[in-house]
Amino acid sequence: VTRLQLETRRRSAASAAEHLANATTPLIRDAWYVVATSEEVTREPRGRDVMETSVVFYRGRDGNPIVLQNRCAHRSFPLAQGTVEDDTLRCRYHGLRYDREGRCVEIPMQSHVPAALRVRAYPVVERPPLVWVWFGEAASDPVQVPHPSWLGAPGWDRYAGYLEIAGSYVHLHENLLDLSHLSFLHATTFGTPEYARAPVEVAVDGSDIQAWRHVTCELPDIYAVPLGSQFISPGLHVNTGHLKNLELATAAIATVRVAQVITPASRERTHYWFVGHRDFALGRPDIDDFMQRAQYAAFAEDQFAIEEIARLERIERACEFSEAHLPSDAPGIAMRRRLKKLADRETVRGAT
Amino acid sequence: VTRLQLETRRRSAASAAEHLANATTPLIRDAWYVVATSEEVTREPRGRDVMETSVVFYRGRDGNPIVLQNRCAHRSFPLAQGTVEDDTLRCRYHGLRYDREGRCVEIPMQSHVPAALRVRAYPVVERPPLVWVWFGEAASDPVQVPHPSWLGAPGWDRYAGYLEIAGSYVHLHENLLDLSHLSFLHATTFGTPEYARAPVEVAVDGSDIQAWRHVTCELPDIYAVPLGSQFISPGLHVNTGHLKNLELATAAIATVRVAQVITPASRERTHYWFVGHRDFALGRPDIDDFMQRAQYAAFAEDQFAIEEIARLERIERACEFSEAHLPSDAPGIAMRRRLKKLADRETVRGAT
Amino acid sequence: VTRLQLETRRRSAASAAEHLANATTPLIRDAWYVVATSEEVTREPRGRDVMETSVVFYRGRDGNPIVLQNRCAHRSFPLAQGTVEDDTLRCRYHGLRYDREGRCVEIPMQSHVPAALRVRAYPVVERPPLVWVWFGEAASDPVQVPHPSWLGAPGWDRYAGYLEIAGSYVHLHENLLDLSHLSFLHATTFGTPEYARAPVEVAVDGSDIQAWRHVTCELPDIYAVPLGSQFISPGLHVNTGHLKNLELATAAIATVRVAQVITPASRERTHYWFVGHRDFALGRPDIDDFMQRAQYAAFAEDQFAIEEIARLERIERACEFSEAHLPSDAPGIAMRRRLKKLADRETVRGAT
Repeated sequence: VTRLQLETRRRSAASAAEHLANATTPLIRDAWYVVATSEEVTREPRGRDVMETSVVFYRGRDGNPIVLQNRCAHRSFPLAQGTVEDDTLRCRYHGLRYDREGRCVEIPMQSHVPAALRVRAYPVVERPPLVWVWFGEAASDPVQVPHPSWLGAPGWDRYAGYLEIAGSYVHLHENLLDLSHLSFLHATTFGTPEYARAPVEVAVDGSDIQAWRHVTCELPDIYAVPLGSQFISPGLHVNTGHLKNLELATAAIATVRVAQVITPASRERTHYWFVGHRDFALGRPDIDDFMQRAQYAAFAEDQFAIEEIARLERIERACEFSEAHLPSDAPGIAMRRRLKKLADRETVRGAT
Repeated sequence: VTRLQLETRRRSAASAAEHLANATTPLIRDAWYVVATSEEVTREPRGRDVMETSVVFYRGRDGNPIVLQNRCAHRSFPLAQGTVEDDTLRCRYHGLRYDREGRCVEIPMQSHVPAALRVRAYPVVERPPLVWVWFGEAASDPVQVPHPSWLGAPGWDRYAGYLEIAGSYVHLHENLLDLSHLSFLHATTFGTPEYARAPVEVAVDGSDIQAWRHVTCELPDIYAVPLGSQFISPGLHVNTGHLKNLELATAAIATVRVAQVITPASRERTHYWFVGHRDFALGRPDIDDFMQRAQYAAFAEDQFAIEEIARLERIERACEFSEAHLPSDAPGIAMRRRLKKLADRETVRGAT
Repeated sequence: VTRLQLETRRRSAASAAEHLANATTPLIRDAWYVVATSEEVTREPRGRDVMETSVVFYRGRDGNPIVLQNRCAHRSFPLAQGTVEDDTLRCRYHGLRYDREGRCVEIPMQSHVPAALRVRAYPVVERPPLVWVWFGEAASDPVQVPHPSWLGAPGWDRYAGYLEIAGSYVHLHENLLDLSHLSFLHATTFGTPEYARAPVEVAVDGSDIQAWRHVTCELPDIYAVPLGSQFISPGLHVNTGHLKNLELATAAIATVRVAQVITPASRERTHYWFVGHRDFALGRPDIDDFMQRAQYAAFAEDQFAIEEIARLERIERACEFSEAHLPSDAPGIAMRRRLKKLADRETVRGAT
């Protein structure tokens, strides 16, 4: 390899990198993100940092979730410290009261309430067990909530978990689309030798980004590792595992589906919920527990990876580092190209 | 409300905001600030971070406080780690010794001491129980020390406290001038229903910024909540409560005065001392304790508010947020306009 | 002193300061630095942050140390989390395997391995008990490893220690070259009154920067304080103490040598190893323990000084501070001028 060739490669790598989202790419606002699970939203207000802002959520009298800007329009006090009165939320600093649309409806010190006095109210759609919120400037469309029909549906038993990751949501998405790390990062959790050998099949078709791995194995246990991995939206990723009996050549005898719910708190911190579903061994809480523990063990390894990557990126901010891509990265690359396009589109629009 | 009207309002709000001090406004140096209470200043040197610098203070042989730059002019070691010898302070790194004017008077390694070798000595005025220091470039004038005659005077019983607040001194000043938050933030400490109903009277006359609330109530207890609130200087705020018997139509039968002493450590951290005085129930340490505990409870709520506001401002650095002002904010707005003018004046002068 | 004279002095001080390295000067890459002691380098990979990057080190099958870039070229995972296989290191994220030259030699997901896929391998020279690494862009020359012949040689008994300092390596070097602080900072550890009185002799000759202090004393103990201090390279400083019996006018009867090993983790953090040698009281582990404890006590004082200086520099980033220099600083000044020249040379070269 000549020096010129190396330089050419380096330049083309740098130029390719420009089209891929990474940990510094601006967040994508025109998308639905989960801010809480249904059971977290009660009549008690609760605050959470999401999408480089802070929101407060509580449940209205009709049972619907309400999500407002957490920062009081008057003197920036967190409304999450306040009290819910009917559908309204009263700030604990000066008693200003906001309705579910974010309009101020009471100022204790005066009788007149300026019409312009309000906090932002976020479009919210609850699809149990998740509460989705729209942070974009564009108009929200509930039809676009990326809620798969099986998620939270009857006929499945579920287990769930949550991790807060000190790293970028882009890296988490890439981790999830990447089936090739199972045998290594998860060697002692769910990366069996059969996995290492199994062929991966990738399908990138417009916005449909999927990877499948066909694993032939003795089922080691009741627990089936997810085999298919699909990027749905910036806020959602889905893993699917179909278990088949190859001797009988029948359809799948059992299925596991995991909603991987991803919400950036900021570019540096990520909320990560997972909600697993299975259609076998129903009604057995011991299996729920087993699967939840197994996933926590494996996902903690992913968390470790993403946080270590963030740490190295921080240390080497000044270093020239050009990431190498492998054919197995195709789904991740497609996803990152997509996120970059979405982010660029918002940047351009924001500038006009 | 049309879109144009909204935009007009937004612009006029932004333009008004330009004239108000906030958490990012440069500190005002031409003012007297407390760096310590009298009892903190002893023959043992002690360091403290104030006004974006670090000072060391100790008491000279004549009993007067000495305040010097904490950073040794030679190799930046903190003089507060050193030892006092007569009126001088010896650095513990190389033994350089400075006198009360900050002049180096001894270098152990050599006989010659360059005349230019010195640390900054700050003008200091002790008005027990407080020690005031001048950080400005302009000449200091002890007459301008904002020490009220009653502060530390005989005839009063006192209690005192200290909090370090991870937030802006501007927000603390505004909090203190604002009587309308008592019934909410302090609902369980000193915000009684009578307070919520009581009218507020505001007086802003040049540099005199005051707010009074006339509360009619059954005295719930020996403890009288301060009713009047006055901005004195960037480093001092005073609360006054006059207790009257309206039936007897006499003058005040008892008075409570609290010196709220405010010294920025930086724009992000604030030293906060309070020194309460009362002219009734004299000689009763149980009442001192009661009042100190009550104030700590309430002021910790203010600390919480100011720190939460700082946290939200930090999270939302990039967000467009335009603060809404209410008529009850008039004293705070007047104070912030004043601070901004003082800061601007120093910036202009610094540039010439 | 007139105002003009003061201004002239201030300007000439500022101009002199430009030629001295300080805590913000870019690190010098063309130099050998210790990344680990010999006993830290085993068949288990281990990571360490050095020179504003992160490296992984392990020992090859031939027993030689291998030092690679810690960040996998593929997805930035720390190789230090991986596993050693023969001379290669396998990443725990996707199983990529690198040889001792940093070339990728296996990608589990594919049969082809691109020739350009590699991590940086650092030139490494082990001189027990230390492992030296070259971080420069210029070609490395093992002959330039600043290993003194006595270091780790037979005929000496040794003790060693390690501190991580939250401050600049420039300040640590200056501290070590400066014998004048012993009587003050180390007053209760090894600064005896005899030290305070002893004359210092300074020799700065091109790259040779030394300071000697001739102390006449009753030996208080078996322990001899190092008397000579020599800057060897950005990564090494040597202290030497010759103990003589002046009555007998013989040559030194005993010698203590301490290798002060200094490796910047970054401009703000410094690795600091010390390896003491003595040629008397051989074979007495109680003396090893005594000397190690004594050095830890004294060096912890230096650590305190350097960290406090870093803290004051941080607080006063915005302040104008012009460091005063004394004749006794000559060795430190010479060293800082040298470091600045080396740093400037690399900056200029990097720009072309």
